[in-house]
Amino acid sequence: MKRIAIYPGSFDPVTNGHIDIIRRAAGIFDLLVVGVLNNSVKKATFTVRERVQMLNTTVALPNVEIKSFSGLLVDFVQENKAIAIIKGLRAVSDFEYECQMALINKKMLPACDTFFMPTAQEYSFLSSGIVKEMARYGGSLKGLVPECLERVIAEKCAISRSEVQKPSLP
Amino acid sequence: MKRIAIYPGSFDPVTNGHIDIIRRAAGIFDLLVVGVLNNSVKKATFTVRERVQMLNTTVALPNVEIKSFSGLLVDFVQENKAIAIIKGLRAVSDFEYECQMALINKKMLPACDTFFMPTAQEYSFLSSGIVKEMARYGGSLKGLVPECLERVIAEKCAISRSEVQKPSLP
Amino acid sequence: MKRIAIYPGSFDPVTNGHIDIIRRAAGIFDLLVVGVLNNSVKKATFTVRERVQMLNTTVALPNVEIKSFSGLLVDFVQENKAIAIIKGLRAVSDFEYECQMALINKKMLPACDTFFMPTAQEYSFLSSGIVKEMARYGGSLKGLVPECLERVIAEKCAISRSEVQKPSLP
Amino acid sequence: MKRIAIYPGSFDPVTNGHIDIIRRAAGIFDLLVVGVLNNSVKKATFTVRERVQMLNTTVALPNVEIKSFSGLLVDFVQENKAIAIIKGLRAVSDFEYECQMALINKKMLPACDTFFMPTAQEYSFLSSGIVKEMARYGGSLKGLVPECLERVIAEKCAISRSEVQKPSLP
Amino acid sequence: MKRIAIYPGSFDPVTNGHIDIIRRAAGIFDLLVVGVLNNSVKKATFTVRERVQMLNTTVALPNVEIKSFSGLLVDFVQENKAIAIIKGLRAVSDFEYECQMALINKKMLPACDTFFMPTAQEYSFLSSGIVKEMARYGGSLKGLVPECLERVIAEKCAISRSEVQKPSLP
Amino acid sequence: MKRIAIYPGSFDPVTNGHIDIIRRAAGIFDLLVVGVLNNSVKKATFTVRERVQMLNTTVALPNVEIKSFSGLLVDFVQENKAIAIIKGLRAVSDFEYECQMALINKKMLPACDTFFMPTAQEYSFLSSGIVKEMARYGGSLKGLVPECLERVIAEKCAISRSEVQKPSLP
Repeated sequence: MKRIAIYPGSFDPVTNGHIDIIRRAAGIFDLLVVGVLNNSVKKATFTVRERVQMLNTTVALPNVEIKSFSGLLVDFVQENKAIAIIKGLRAVSDFEYECQMALINKKMLPACDTFFMPTAQEYSFLSSGIVKEMARYGGSLKGLVPECLERVIAEKCAISRSEVQKPSLP
Repeated sequence: MKRIAIYPGSFDPVTNGHIDIIRRAAGIFDLLVVGVLNNSVKKATFTVRERVQMLNTTVALPNVEIKSFSGLLVDFVQENKAIAIIKGLRAVSDFEYECQMALINKKMLPACDTFFMPTAQEYSFLSSGIVKEMARYGGSLKGLVPECLERVIAEKCAISRSEVQKPSLP
Repeated sequence: MKRIAIYPGSFDPVTNGHIDIIRRAAGIFDLLVVGVLNNSVKKATFTVRERVQMLNTTVALPNVEIKSFSGLLVDFVQENKAIAIIKGLRAVSDFEYECQMALINKKMLPACDTFFMPTAQEYSFLSSGIVKEMARYGGSLKGLVPECLERVIAEKCAISRSEVQKPSLP
Repeated sequence: MKRIAIYPGSFDPVTNGHIDIIRRAAGIFDLLVVGVLNNSVKKATFTVRERVQMLNTTVALPNVEIKSFSGLLVDFVQENKAIAIIKGLRAVSDFEYECQMALINKKMLPACDTFFMPTAQEYSFLSSGIVKEMARYGGSLKGLVPECLERVIAEKCAISRSEVQKPSLP
Repeated sequence: MKRIAIYPGSFDPVTNGHIDIIRRAAGIFDLLVVGVLNNSVKKATFTVRERVQMLNTTVALPNVEIKSFSGLLVDFVQENKAIAIIKGLRAVSDFEYECQMALINKKMLPACDTFFMPTAQEYSFLSSGIVKEMARYGGSLKGLVPECLERVIAEKCAISRSEVQKPSLP
Repeated sequence: MKRIAIYPGSFDPVTNGHIDIIRRAAGIFDLLVVGVLNNSVKKATFTVRERVQMLNTTVALPNVEIKSFSGLLVDFVQENKAIAIIKGLRAVSDFEYECQMALINKKMLPACDTFFMPTAQEYSFLSSGIVKEMARYGGSLKGLVPECLERVIAEKCAISRSEVQKPSLP
């Protein structure tokens, strides 16, 4: 039996923290399916297609597949015959929310367990939101996102930056 | 002197966690007034009228009254001559926010105390937000909300589901 | 039916934070039994007799009784026909431990609920341990413990202070 | 060498908690620059000009300057030749977020350190958001914001209050 | 390549929470080595031999081995050619400590990752310490520890109970 | 007026995390007094004399003084005419305890404020306790403690290691 795990997320955009989790989780399971959430409620900066492409560009491991999904995570888990969900954990606030999610997913799909991986120390401050905030103001993304994505992420966020209303103070 | 307590909340929608707190708190006080917050700032999925009705349909205890209120909680407490505010607590993040609220309410109305009740173990993952998220994607609400409300909640959330834009990825 | 609650603790020694919780909880229940834990494992600074006496000296409310107990809290709750356990909460770390205790007590005695009361703002830093540490080094206990107990607490802790080995540095 | 620190924030509106931090931090550094963030993404209730004016009206310390800034905090720190960032901390949730910010700022500008000051006990429940919520419903702001600002804050929040849709329940 | 994981702990005594983690982790790895820590500093209630035996009596999965170890966890991981450490997580306080341990173990042995599994909901209050405290006072262990161990755990803790000094209050 | 700060601690033993805080705090104040606590209650592994010497060996900054103290921190603060207490913060659990201490110290000595510095990212897992645990089992201390102290710390902890009873399992 092949052991399959899902690593779900928004990846809006991909960070080095995500890549680190993918690499480590891929060492444990026979197949790791990275699931890019197409959230119909919360608007993303990058389209699902762009986010899938960013991951495909960066990750070149034989036992990792990049897919998008919408709807309930447990449905996606079942479609992929996965036995585990992988989540990265940075902080206590992550932990509480993710524990609640793990409990409700366990209730809906008892055969599937959630495994938490602590974020590598050098990425403990890193999130997609922080990357976007830095890019918006022209901060360097070096070391925060995969090198091959630095430019595309900086440009996309700079676009939405120009749309922003000018500060009203002289 | 009749001992009156207020159990305030959004109840958007009512969950089995809410019903459990109501039942337990009603065993301690002479009268428990469930206060449905009509929050003019944060838009609710269910109208106040619907939320009051959901509670009335489900709760049939002689010493529980369902009311709606808007404005400051301490004003509602005074109107009802209550001596206590009841809040359910699930997680550490709840706890910090609710402690701040309890302190400010105590400052404004020193005669009224806040009592926290830990959520029953089987509902520790349960919130109105999670119920709505599950209903939106057609997940089962069995065991999460009162049986008599399962259908009305599922339908209401399914309506807002159809309004959602279709995922753009093939 | 008389509504009886238990407020258990070590009270080693009594602080103004304890007295504040007792006064507020006594306003909600018909009878509040303060249960002084005679913990056979963890050695206390004050004897159970002294701790019961400290509470009797300070609390003069008609519907409050001071008792000592050993063994399981739920047994003491049942002996006293109580329907509620009262605990004061200061910090997040209190909260987690007390939630676990509340869950296990609920499991053993489903008819009894735990209610948490947030410590009054002015006592949020206060614990029996801090009182002892301050008394040991001759710090003032004014405002930390009931005025009538200041001297007895200071003297008791000063005794154990003299037993302490002298610092070895010149 | 003059030791300069930055105390950044939204100050939307100024509270007594902010004033307390300013006063205490000004006792440690040669110059404290209060930086009012002109956040182009998150809409504020008060304009940057109003927020700067509120601080100027209230703070009259010789070594405190009030400025506004937009963009990255570390750029503002460098422009002002500051060696430290000051943040007030109320709760555990503040702490985690601020630690992440401190780490990323340290990474971008290693020469600058973040110092946290615990909020004074009497303001531990106080935030700009709570002030606005209270003002919206006509609650008293006494003791929460500087006396000279009570009226202007109450009026501004009352304006946005009248714009709010009327509750739909009779 | 065989994927081997270590599940380390004191197991003093074994609880149903431990057994649940073992069963779930064994479904993910080719071999799960349960490592019973022989801690020379912190005295245990049960001997290492007894703890290993308790686990052997209860766990009958073909890909689970029970071993004892002393010294550094990373040395034990290397001896067993394991690629992962499994830890169960109950609460926020667990989480922080275990994250620090995971970081230091990662630093010492970069090839080995720590995976956290959230404790099953029905065991979230359960720890070895609570089991011992309940057994000491004659509380029922039903549902807390494996059925076949109830008696031996109750008896061992009752022995140390008799050794305890009698309460001094009449 | 000279601005003086106290950095108190047990330093049992000194770690690179301590040294990092000392270096950064010394950049802010005119004089930083490192206060080595001679705790008469909690027994230390290293004598006060050894701990003072470890700091003197490692720290060679002109505006840093190493002293030992016993008794209340606020008394030591006053003796040194300090206006600030510096504490390093690693985790949420540190934060809560240190906030309580800061509040009680502020109450006893209103003229003195506590400043928290977040531990540098690379030392977020590091504590004196972890250093001792690693040294006890022969783990490398490289990068955890100042290089010049590695040997003396390893030897001291190895001594107490030999005293430990042999594991009883064959």
